Amino acid sequence: MKIYDWPTGPYPARVRIALAEKNLLSDVEFVPVNLWKGEHKKADFLAKNYSGTLPVLELGDGTCLAECTAITVYLDALVGEPTLTGRTPLEKGVIHMMTKRAEIEMLDAISVYFHNATPGLGPDVERDQNREWGLRQRDRALRGMHYLDAVLRKQPFIAGDAFSMADIAVIGGFIFAAAVKLPVPQESEALLAWYARMQERPSVRTQLAIVPPPH
Amino acid sequence: MKIYDWPTGPYPARVRIALAEKNLLSDVEFVPVNLWKGEHKKADFLAKNYSGTLPVLELGDGTCLAECTAITVYLDALVGEPTLTGRTPLEKGVIHMMTKRAEIEMLDAISVYFHNATPGLGPDVERDQNREWGLRQRDRALRGMHYLDAVLRKQPFIAGDAFSMADIAVIGGFIFAAAVKLPVPQESEALLAWYARMQERPSVRTQLAIVPPPH
Repeated sequence: MKIYDWPTGPYPARVRIALAEKNLLSDVEFVPVNLWKGEHKKADFLAKNYSGTLPVLELGDGTCLAECTAITVYLDALVGEPTLTGRTPLEKGVIHMMTKRAEIEMLDAISVYFHNATPGLGPDVERDQNREWGLRQRDRALRGMHYLDAVLRKQPFIAGDAFSMADIAVIGGFIFAAAVKLPVPQESEALLAWYARMQERPSVRTQLAIVPPPH
Repeated sequence: MKIYDWPTGPYPARVRIALAEKNLLSDVEFVPVNLWKGEHKKADFLAKNYSGTLPVLELGDGTCLAECTAITVYLDALVGEPTLTGRTPLEKGVIHMMTKRAEIEMLDAISVYFHNATPGLGPDVERDQNREWGLRQRDRALRGMHYLDAVLRKQPFIAGDAFSMADIAVIGGFIFAAAVKLPVPQESEALLAWYARMQERPSVRTQLAIVPPPH
């Protein structure tokens, strides 16, 4: 398997953490795609992923899988344990819901803020910014952090009693928040305590040694 | 099971089609949430789904599942056949990727256009529009239709050789496109032919009798 990747990207980090959890890192060749040069928006790469985002997993036969959730579902079905996407119908449903919610209410919102209301990847890549929309998404992410804090006051992990793909999505959110200097509010004590616990996991610690530490 | 629902909503239609495919419609009580009155943005409903979107599936114990993909994954795990989310790791991965791609490149893009660059659900609900962003997402959806057309020139269904959750997501896109009068370009012959075939499926035909027909 190849993974088209950029070492400091929050989304690539999600798949690298999933690979580490599944003990699959050594089965993967990482191919860098330079985000700062906009290589992910060029024709060669768009042929692999129409949406022009990292990461992409390429199989031996050339099949390309994009989108963190899709890649994680694939890896999780490939190697059963430990599960990242749940065992029972309800576990699966809740994990998918909380992963999507972590994306729209935190990680993706920070991404839109970064690309639209900050210099982002620079003027050659960010050609059509919308500052007002970016700032609105920044505020959505800050509200999302408070929501996630409320979730973690009631349960130890984002989707319930066990570590899952949903936790990894929020870890991606923390990585992006640090990169754009949008600190998680100090009053979000449960969220910050959860993140301290997450950093004790070898899969997470190893990746945070690659990307800049969030705090 | 209860489903919080609005009959003409494109996202609720996705879950109703999934329920019909799984032969589960008669197990569900549908509870209307009036989008035009903004009931989905009020505290009672936000307690069920923080993101304030329809549909939501509520189980007997009060557990609420939001997000079409999460609900579909749950239903698909509950009743194995016919599968909507795939059997092999690769099928699962591709179906999840294509579902997400259908959302970001067509359905969600049309939704953002509707809520930001048209009157949307009216001035009481759409309080903070961003017309420029909405128009950009409209253009993204039109490009997405061309992309999906190219996909369907090579394979009979959105995610390959079989009907899946990804087809349902694009059907949701057609429903929304019709509602906002954003017709699928006539040159997208493969996409239009696929949609004609989709309308022959009982699960789809029944739902299109509820929502306004796209063409």
